[in-house]
Amino acid sequence: MMKKVDGLDKLITSLSQMPGIGKKTAQRLAFHIVKMPEEAVRGLIQAVEKARTLTYCPVCFNLNQAETGCSICNDDRRDRNVICVVEQPSDLWALENSGVFHGLYHVLLGHIAHLDNVSPEDLTIKQLMGRVRQNNIKELILATNPTVEGDATALYIQKLLESSNIKVTRLARGIPTGSTIEYASKVILADALQGRKNLSG
Amino acid sequence: MMKKVDGLDKLITSLSQMPGIGKKTAQRLAFHIVKMPEEAVRGLIQAVEKARTLTYCPVCFNLNQAETGCSICNDDRRDRNVICVVEQPSDLWALENSGVFHGLYHVLLGHIAHLDNVSPEDLTIKQLMGRVRQNNIKELILATNPTVEGDATALYIQKLLESSNIKVTRLARGIPTGSTIEYASKVILADALQGRKNLSG
Repeated sequence: MMKKVDGLDKLITSLSQMPGIGKKTAQRLAFHIVKMPEEAVRGLIQAVEKARTLTYCPVCFNLNQAETGCSICNDDRRDRNVICVVEQPSDLWALENSGVFHGLYHVLLGHIAHLDNVSPEDLTIKQLMGRVRQNNIKELILATNPTVEGDATALYIQKLLESSNIKVTRLARGIPTGSTIEYASKVILADALQGRKNLSG
Repeated sequence: MMKKVDGLDKLITSLSQMPGIGKKTAQRLAFHIVKMPEEAVRGLIQAVEKARTLTYCPVCFNLNQAETGCSICNDDRRDRNVICVVEQPSDLWALENSGVFHGLYHVLLGHIAHLDNVSPEDLTIKQLMGRVRQNNIKELILATNPTVEGDATALYIQKLLESSNIKVTRLARGIPTGSTIEYASKVILADALQGRKNLSG
């Protein structure tokens, strides 16, 4: 068998440590990187370096260019009475791209997961409580993922605010528009039935 | 809607230009890169830089560390009478990993694809013919992919050698071991029937 080509082997190992990149994909990417034009490789490396200069907003923990500050917290047109709580900046981005929410956000930077040793103290829940106490927040929308961990995290935050006057809501769950009832799972159908809306007024 | 975060946006664009990386995967990778420990990012960039120093062997066009030379062409234990012709270095690696071939290789660096403007002159076919003429090659195994382009490329090379004494073979086609006949496609079954082997002696 041929001796391993070190240079490529290290790159394949590095790439296959990224989320969702298996051995085969890593190999394909590595061969692609070898063949890429020099300027494209420079561009990629520069993009990585640039992304590494991003910082978390100390208030909402969204990712921002350090030099510009948080584009959401600094936006005067946004509704400062509502905070939408998400797990990751990528969730915030998805919501922003939908264009349906105009309040503020709070990124938890994870979810409570005891099995992975992630406790509430590892998230930005303390900072969230600080914001809620100090500002005139009327509603907290819990937009953690509809998973066991996301639900546990939402429940934890909900309990913390039980004695307050703040309205705490959770994103609706049901059949996703565009899908079919036939292929919806039991859990999705249960959610949809439980959350059914009265149309008769 | 929030202003785009330049640093992340450029990285997502760069990543999504890689083969098999869609917009969503690129976004996930970008967020991962932002969160990676500094040393892991350094390691990744170094691995990319190192991989970029690989060079093609001027004889067989396999990828090699420039300093060590071609590990296959320089290996005296290999059978120098047989050349296995593949499209890409990754094909050569797959064959090497199987450990079933001990001859030399020739990497075409592509396949003939008129629709994509890849003609025989864009491949290393001329160099292959030079090797075949100058050395004592007894057999050429055409191991291009079992696709329209791979077949066209194999046919082209086969025609070039029609008047020579060299034995030209093509990898066998049939049902892949471990799969089931029930799920094999019509084309696979046709290949398997056509290439059936006589067991009765």
